[in-house]
Amino acid sequence: MAAQPTEHALIAKHRPTLDQALEAIRTRAYWSPHPEHPKAYGEHGSLDAAAGKAAFDAVRGTRLDLGQPGTDDWVGGEVSPYGIELGVTYPHPDLDTLLPAMRAGRRAWRDAGPETRAVVCLEILKRISDRTHEFAHAVMHTSGQAFMMAFQAGGPHAQDRGLEAVAYAYAEQVRTPGTAEWTKPQGKRDPLALTKQFTPVPRGIALVIGCNTFPTWNGYPGLFASLATGNAVLVKPHPRAVLPLALTVRIAREALAEAGFDPNLVALAAERPGEGIAKTLATRPEIRIIDYTGSTSFGDWLEANARQAQVYTEKAGVNTVIVESTDAYKGMLSNLAFSLSLYSGQMCTTPQNLLIPRDGIRTDEGPKTFDEVVAGLARAVDGLLGDDARANALLGAIVNPDVKARLEAAAGLGEVALASREIAHPDFPDAVVRTPVIVKLDGAKPDAEAAYMSECFGPVSFAVAVDSAADAAELLRRTIREKGAMTVGAYTTDSQVEEAVQEVCLEEAAQLSLNLTGGVYVNQTAAFSDFHGSGGNPAANAALCDGAFVANRFRVVEVRREA
Amino acid sequence: MAAQPTEHALIAKHRPTLDQALEAIRTRAYWSPHPEHPKAYGEHGSLDAAAGKAAFDAVRGTRLDLGQPGTDDWVGGEVSPYGIELGVTYPHPDLDTLLPAMRAGRRAWRDAGPETRAVVCLEILKRISDRTHEFAHAVMHTSGQAFMMAFQAGGPHAQDRGLEAVAYAYAEQVRTPGTAEWTKPQGKRDPLALTKQFTPVPRGIALVIGCNTFPTWNGYPGLFASLATGNAVLVKPHPRAVLPLALTVRIAREALAEAGFDPNLVALAAERPGEGIAKTLATRPEIRIIDYTGSTSFGDWLEANARQAQVYTEKAGVNTVIVESTDAYKGMLSNLAFSLSLYSGQMCTTPQNLLIPRDGIRTDEGPKTFDEVVAGLARAVDGLLGDDARANALLGAIVNPDVKARLEAAAGLGEVALASREIAHPDFPDAVVRTPVIVKLDGAKPDAEAAYMSECFGPVSFAVAVDSAADAAELLRRTIREKGAMTVGAYTTDSQVEEAVQEVCLEEAAQLSLNLTGGVYVNQTAAFSDFHGSGGNPAANAALCDGAFVANRFRVVEVRREA
Repeated sequence: MAAQPTEHALIAKHRPTLDQALEAIRTRAYWSPHPEHPKAYGEHGSLDAAAGKAAFDAVRGTRLDLGQPGTDDWVGGEVSPYGIELGVTYPHPDLDTLLPAMRAGRRAWRDAGPETRAVVCLEILKRISDRTHEFAHAVMHTSGQAFMMAFQAGGPHAQDRGLEAVAYAYAEQVRTPGTAEWTKPQGKRDPLALTKQFTPVPRGIALVIGCNTFPTWNGYPGLFASLATGNAVLVKPHPRAVLPLALTVRIAREALAEAGFDPNLVALAAERPGEGIAKTLATRPEIRIIDYTGSTSFGDWLEANARQAQVYTEKAGVNTVIVESTDAYKGMLSNLAFSLSLYSGQMCTTPQNLLIPRDGIRTDEGPKTFDEVVAGLARAVDGLLGDDARANALLGAIVNPDVKARLEAAAGLGEVALASREIAHPDFPDAVVRTPVIVKLDGAKPDAEAAYMSECFGPVSFAVAVDSAADAAELLRRTIREKGAMTVGAYTTDSQVEEAVQEVCLEEAAQLSLNLTGGVYVNQTAAFSDFHGSGGNPAANAALCDGAFVANRFRVVEVRREA
Repeated sequence: MAAQPTEHALIAKHRPTLDQALEAIRTRAYWSPHPEHPKAYGEHGSLDAAAGKAAFDAVRGTRLDLGQPGTDDWVGGEVSPYGIELGVTYPHPDLDTLLPAMRAGRRAWRDAGPETRAVVCLEILKRISDRTHEFAHAVMHTSGQAFMMAFQAGGPHAQDRGLEAVAYAYAEQVRTPGTAEWTKPQGKRDPLALTKQFTPVPRGIALVIGCNTFPTWNGYPGLFASLATGNAVLVKPHPRAVLPLALTVRIAREALAEAGFDPNLVALAAERPGEGIAKTLATRPEIRIIDYTGSTSFGDWLEANARQAQVYTEKAGVNTVIVESTDAYKGMLSNLAFSLSLYSGQMCTTPQNLLIPRDGIRTDEGPKTFDEVVAGLARAVDGLLGDDARANALLGAIVNPDVKARLEAAAGLGEVALASREIAHPDFPDAVVRTPVIVKLDGAKPDAEAAYMSECFGPVSFAVAVDSAADAAELLRRTIREKGAMTVGAYTTDSQVEEAVQEVCLEEAAQLSLNLTGGVYVNQTAAFSDFHGSGGNPAANAALCDGAFVANRFRVVEVRREA
């Protein structure tokens, strides 16, 4: 434990980083304070690879006692997608004790003001960053991501998204000054004069409902946006992905306490198997904000039923890539192959439907038929995943049996252009590792529509034959409007087609990547620059991160007096 | 008609005003570009008093043809609270024609960008401002406000609130740059480089549901916030207060057309008696934003049922003033008397419950018993309204029979400390003009609670005897939490009481005015400086105006390409 830092010391330590983050969200140029390379850790108090692994091993098989009030049981049963049991148990809450305890520290946290809250959040993020190697293992063994992806997406990229939320929250709160002198002329009479105080006040307790695949990346924006705006935060992890968020809560509680605040401002709510505690929590009157990532059905339920709360959801969508023409055929295929393979397509941003004109496309290698394009893509995936070590490093493990079942069923939906195959993992024999399947469908056939117009989460893509670029644009429009989309991609050298696709995305509010052929992929977004989702189509009602994501997590109370 | 202004000319004309508005919302110091004095009008193209009256007289008895598509009928039947029939008819929409027509101009309006949209909105507001004298009569003869109040609240103050919304909308849209170059270092390899375009896109058609008492003041924030963020706006006025918003729509359509945009971006939906068109409109899929001012029951219905839309509501609340002690007894009484009398208490911000310790209060004139304070207030109201001309100028007319019925019933709720009396209006013999009633209640008696814990909209106040300052603070807390409050006032010279009341307001998110004894009243808020409502208690889910009021009316779509 470090010596208790004063607020002043925390401001001195973290204000420069906050200022850089504020500048980054304004310019949206590249920036990150969190190194992506594993070797960057190990100095200045951060854990190196060995120490991180040791920390992860040390927590396995233990009771993770967070010192929370109102713990009536210890629950847990996470089994890694790589086959090992984590054996960690976590506090199960008696809500009637825990929720009131979480309100006890709210006044001091509110009165601390936006800057102190921001730097305390940055201190939490710094401590998380220092333990990135430990988090990498925790994320790997709950999400099934391969180690390097778990390290980067679960570590620095998640921390970036958390910091981004803190920056937006801070900026939003200081748009209104703390005080104002208001003097209104009254002609020859004395002016009217008031002194006004403006205080950002929290809504109450915020609930973060975590997901299985990206517990930190999808959890941090809501957690830090709510905490930075003065709310207490209760974290309800996915039962299969508790550890990364439990470690997060532990660090947050320590940092809050050391900064002189009530650690119960952040708490964990682990649940018993099948308990469905999220539903109970979501309608408690104390819960005034909910951040959720997961299925459309529960997201819709939250939006309809948690009426006492501000509800921010990221649900499911059907992501489309239009392949109309390209001047970099090989680059296009290798870029798409990577997007389909990364984390076995278990990203909310992975393309599902590849819309390709049935008469083929123009490329820098001459015209290619529909079948040639699909076969080319299949070969590109095969080439990318031909080496088992590289395949394991890219694919990770199938996160749960539902994904495996969908993958197996997909082969029956149409003509298989690329079959999925099993990959053995050298270290984890029980890991379920699979390459993606690509299935050909005819977009003109009504019976194909049931397949490509539903989200098939996992390593399943449909190569859909369409009549024309215009047909593709209209199918894109209908897909976004009816099913939502986290991402859209398009390959075209025709400015009119580009214009048409762009117009669909502007009208239906979907984020578009055009002609990616290098080292940036449609399924990746960078904090401080890219928006994740738009909040304007059915896939999500919020975007990471913008003003709307933070502005309603607090209210401003004005107290005015005659001057 | 002026010559068609170019976008460039509009920017040159209005950008300085926009910049001043942006500065005002940042500092929250006093500012307004809209003169409050009737004599300030009549030059530079604005209508003077006679011309404004003539314009109002000219529109009476006419069909107000706005040139809207899909008009299937002409409806209207407004009768002024002052007794005259307006005789104006308005277009009744065939929604299946009008709503599609409103979408036709959306692309050009979106592509115009935030600055052009802002200056077109400012041009609309400038034209409205030039006709402030005409609007004053239209507001007077629909709301029942006395002329001077209709002039100021319905004119410059409403225009200020509209401009404030434009400023917030502009600021929110330009937080993200139009383009960004993103370059991520890759060690020894070439950096990753993307060019990103960011476009604010509208949600669709916004619906403004107007109210009877403040058609322009409560209508303009939503109208201009939605229009400035790229949405088309359909205005559904209260059937008793159509004219002010119909004139607004006419001016908006003219200004849009002259600036080269589709006039159907703003349209009016008048309704037949009892048609309830708001309910039909509110759940149409084209309607993506709703701004509503009115009853709690319909506001709650909108929030629960208009799930396809962002819903911003200002509903009912129970406003409290705590009278604990004062060092300016006379000033306190005269300030309160004015607040209770202005527009016959028909403001959502008028105090209803005056909580006074049953053992009396300390004042600069010595201790005063509960009865003395109430009697003093009654005398102050009597004095303020003793002269019929002044009474008429302050009270205005009772807006509708429901208010009159509540006023008459209030005398039966407890001991009447001040009886309401009729005032004759010299110009309008049919006007229903009434002074406020003050009824004493004992806060400790359960049967009194039914009265003071319900909103009794109109010139009815309850002097509620409480046990102590602490008792008052707790009743205040319960009232805000259960019933909501647009305003809270308190009079105290005790710093501990002040602290306690302030803490209740911070915790329950209510706007507090302390010890007002001069020319500022608890029921008045000034645009650019005061927040109207907090959005954090049951009286309203939004505040005028803040980032949250505008941030979700548009989304940002990103298009990224390799650089």
